Amino acid sequence: MKGNVLVGQSGGPTAVINSSLAGVFKTAMERGFNKVYGMRYGIQGFMDEQYIDMSDFIRNELDLELLKRTPSAFLGTCRYKLPEIHEDRAVYERIFELLDKLNIEVFIYIGGNDSMDTIRKLYDYSLLTGARQKFVGCPKTIDNDLAITDHTPGFGSAAKYIATSIKEIICDAMGFSYKKKNVTIVEIMGRNAGWLTGAAGLSACEDCAGPDLIYLPEMPFSTENFVAKVKQLLEEKDVVVAVVSEGIKTEDGKYVCELATSNASKDAFGHIQMTGTASYLAHVINGELGCKTRAIELSTLQRAAAHMASRVDVDEAFNVGGATVKAADEGASGVMVVIERVSDDPYQSTTGVYDVHRIANDEKVVPREWISEDGTYVTEAFLDYVRPLIQGHYNPMMVAGLPRHLSINQHGYDWSAPKGR
Amino acid sequence: MKGNVLVGQSGGPTAVINSSLAGVFKTAMERGFNKVYGMRYGIQGFMDEQYIDMSDFIRNELDLELLKRTPSAFLGTCRYKLPEIHEDRAVYERIFELLDKLNIEVFIYIGGNDSMDTIRKLYDYSLLTGARQKFVGCPKTIDNDLAITDHTPGFGSAAKYIATSIKEIICDAMGFSYKKKNVTIVEIMGRNAGWLTGAAGLSACEDCAGPDLIYLPEMPFSTENFVAKVKQLLEEKDVVVAVVSEGIKTEDGKYVCELATSNASKDAFGHIQMTGTASYLAHVINGELGCKTRAIELSTLQRAAAHMASRVDVDEAFNVGGATVKAADEGASGVMVVIERVSDDPYQSTTGVYDVHRIANDEKVVPREWISEDGTYVTEAFLDYVRPLIQGHYNPMMVAGLPRHLSINQHGYDWSAPKGR
Repeated sequence: MKGNVLVGQSGGPTAVINSSLAGVFKTAMERGFNKVYGMRYGIQGFMDEQYIDMSDFIRNELDLELLKRTPSAFLGTCRYKLPEIHEDRAVYERIFELLDKLNIEVFIYIGGNDSMDTIRKLYDYSLLTGARQKFVGCPKTIDNDLAITDHTPGFGSAAKYIATSIKEIICDAMGFSYKKKNVTIVEIMGRNAGWLTGAAGLSACEDCAGPDLIYLPEMPFSTENFVAKVKQLLEEKDVVVAVVSEGIKTEDGKYVCELATSNASKDAFGHIQMTGTASYLAHVINGELGCKTRAIELSTLQRAAAHMASRVDVDEAFNVGGATVKAADEGASGVMVVIERVSDDPYQSTTGVYDVHRIANDEKVVPREWISEDGTYVTEAFLDYVRPLIQGHYNPMMVAGLPRHLSINQHGYDWSAPKGR
Repeated sequence: MKGNVLVGQSGGPTAVINSSLAGVFKTAMERGFNKVYGMRYGIQGFMDEQYIDMSDFIRNELDLELLKRTPSAFLGTCRYKLPEIHEDRAVYERIFELLDKLNIEVFIYIGGNDSMDTIRKLYDYSLLTGARQKFVGCPKTIDNDLAITDHTPGFGSAAKYIATSIKEIICDAMGFSYKKKNVTIVEIMGRNAGWLTGAAGLSACEDCAGPDLIYLPEMPFSTENFVAKVKQLLEEKDVVVAVVSEGIKTEDGKYVCELATSNASKDAFGHIQMTGTASYLAHVINGELGCKTRAIELSTLQRAAAHMASRVDVDEAFNVGGATVKAADEGASGVMVVIERVSDDPYQSTTGVYDVHRIANDEKVVPREWISEDGTYVTEAFLDYVRPLIQGHYNPMMVAGLPRHLSINQHGYDWSAPKGR
């Protein structure tokens, strides 16, 4: 009889990270594993013996389907960096002791760059000690900045939410334009990769002109050129919509959001907490050109808006989750499952596996040839790459007018208690 | 043979303001009016003879259905305050001259408080001069601050979008909580009325605990008490989510957003442009309690997110639009159509008409008894009032993965042109 599977979620969540979790659970059950344990808050919670038996929460197919449509990390995530093995062996001894205690055969970690670093280290330690567990990474990030894989689960849904919201924001801005100039600046997530920001360009279609300007972090940003560009556009039209990445940097490598605020804080991996780029630029435009401006940050909804998830993305996330268990069950370890694009039209993809050593901490950015020559838009080739990934829709399961989610905290619901306070 | 109908949109748009426009068009056609003209950018554009023939854009039932699902003001809106009649009679002479030139019999204005002021003045002028036109107001505002009507079209969809987004934001925040305190503060529109902010409470249901704190602008806000309350909550739990209205004011009547920024600007009606309340409070919490904070402004998407519109709201907006034409056709003038709630469960509503003199510029706020005693939440009675208005869903018409809208600018689409740039 097979042993157990342990699965965890790490880093920033996505709208479909739970669809991968559902895929892991379903495939593990189908392949005859005994139990699937879920780490609470990733490897960090697991080291404190925080875990659940997934079958306590997924009792039937409806629960599984609900999990696929639940945003954020069902299990909770962490941003915890394992030490190098030579720095602190005790951490590894502790983890492997717990793995043996729970009879874990397969360890799946759903995450981005930093999480693949965790898979790499655990795998390396297993080689050193001859531990029997298999370690497989499941890619996940809205930022789409993971190398090797054609794209990452989570990206398509965030791109769909962004393109939809930008369409609605442009609709809104156009309705106010009579004899008044107005400039809207929308700030998009993605850190040093412009994939999500570029996806705003998908909003350009029959019924919408799309944004006027798109600034990716791959190109140095000049506030001066930006003001000049907006000024020039305002001579031709009343409404200007610019989309900027939170990660745009000036020529000398300073984040524009740092120009805005002196108290930029950092997370456990030393990443700067980015926010305020749009409002800084709106302030500059208002000061220099005197017109009405509006700054919009799409904020956490970019990674949480399951109600606008892409069906392609939800399904791929599910399949990739299943593929991790299959790979481990067939003997692979120290690998990440990747998505391979088979064809564009009709869009088809399949999965493969790739050595995690060649992936970890390598940031995939938008290639120069997919950015327009003057650096203020993306090319048609870029949009052709993204477009298949936002197709199709999962209707949320609506209860009392709102999307229903599967919640780990949902125990012993009291029907008689008042629902507000 | 009947003459023509003139319809305009004014003030901030909503997700369903175009559904009212669709209702005006359909009822006018069915009742045998000759043409429906649409003012571009409300009365302001109309005075410059900016108008369209609606039948150039609504050529069939699919167009009409698309218009119902298109956010923002299809015709464009304005924030233009008519002078008092005794101040500038020439303005009125100009408007009525244009009405006669276009053979207008019915003048419909879709808008909020300020727009009903326009209907009142035009009606009063028609009484002075014996002009034949009928003037009827169609209520619209996400803020739900119009008197007399049970609620306003636009409110239900904004409430649904807010409750959905808050659920997703709470999901996201909960996923990060391991051994780390974090406070999320979400800023909601609504000016001096707390209807939309209170609607965040609808997110509390089986799978979601809802926000911890809800601050309406109807109650004086104390930053000190807020910090104390958050501090107390953080002793019991790791994740705190507070929802605040953009319009909360301190005891001495100062907007909290004014504490945050020195450059608060005003619009044509002297209203302060509100923004920055959440980020100010997040800054304070971070400074006082040292924990991780996140400020989220739901921003213009609250009034533009047609993809999350409530079916009840879309249908009521359509019916109310139709009812304006019916009222005028039956001889009413100087009135606004109102929604009357017939029953809560099952929810049923009907329309009536009300003297616009008794409505204009009167702000309806949340009654004290619908706010919890300590002023940090809404009551179950409040939620019972809102809940029926967010029910049901219109699936957006999806084309290439994105919701399709009807656009006034969509002329001579070139299939061969590249869709990006």
